[in-house]
Amino acid sequence: MSNAIFYHAGCPVCLGAEQLVLNIVNQDQYPLEIVQLLEQPNRIAEAEAAGVKSVPALLVDGQVFHINFGAALADLTS
Amino acid sequence: MSNAIFYHAGCPVCLGAEQLVLNIVNQDQYPLEIVQLLEQPNRIAEAEAAGVKSVPALLVDGQVFHINFGAALADLTS
Repeated sequence: MSNAIFYHAGCPVCLGAEQLVLNIVNQDQYPLEIVQLLEQPNRIAEAEAAGVKSVPALLVDGQVFHINFGAALADLTS
Repeated sequence: MSNAIFYHAGCPVCLGAEQLVLNIVNQDQYPLEIVQLLEQPNRIAEAEAAGVKSVPALLVDGQVFHINFGAALADLTS
């Protein structure tokens, strides 16, 4: 069992990708944690440290997958 | 039940994303078709028509999700 974290920022591209991951991910094996970084800005540093450059992004087993492009992580803090 | 098509071109970024989707997608509900476009160049036009701009990409329910960036679709034909 592995954790998957989906980071997003509420943008339309993010919400589309969120729907995708909620639909297709096998959550029995990969329980999904959804983190909205504008609502949880204290998690931005953690996302950045994990290698997240933009949102939406999916972190699985330490690997970051950027899905389409909604916003740069740097723009969330400026 | 819905189909999911994963388009790629064999590049390292593609293979990483392929492993991701093979691991996390619930294939009971979303049977995955893997299409390697350099081996099946006759499927490039179909991918392009579906909105694929680059690989790796995942097409689900008519929506394209570009996962990271391996190669532009246009570069596969040139």
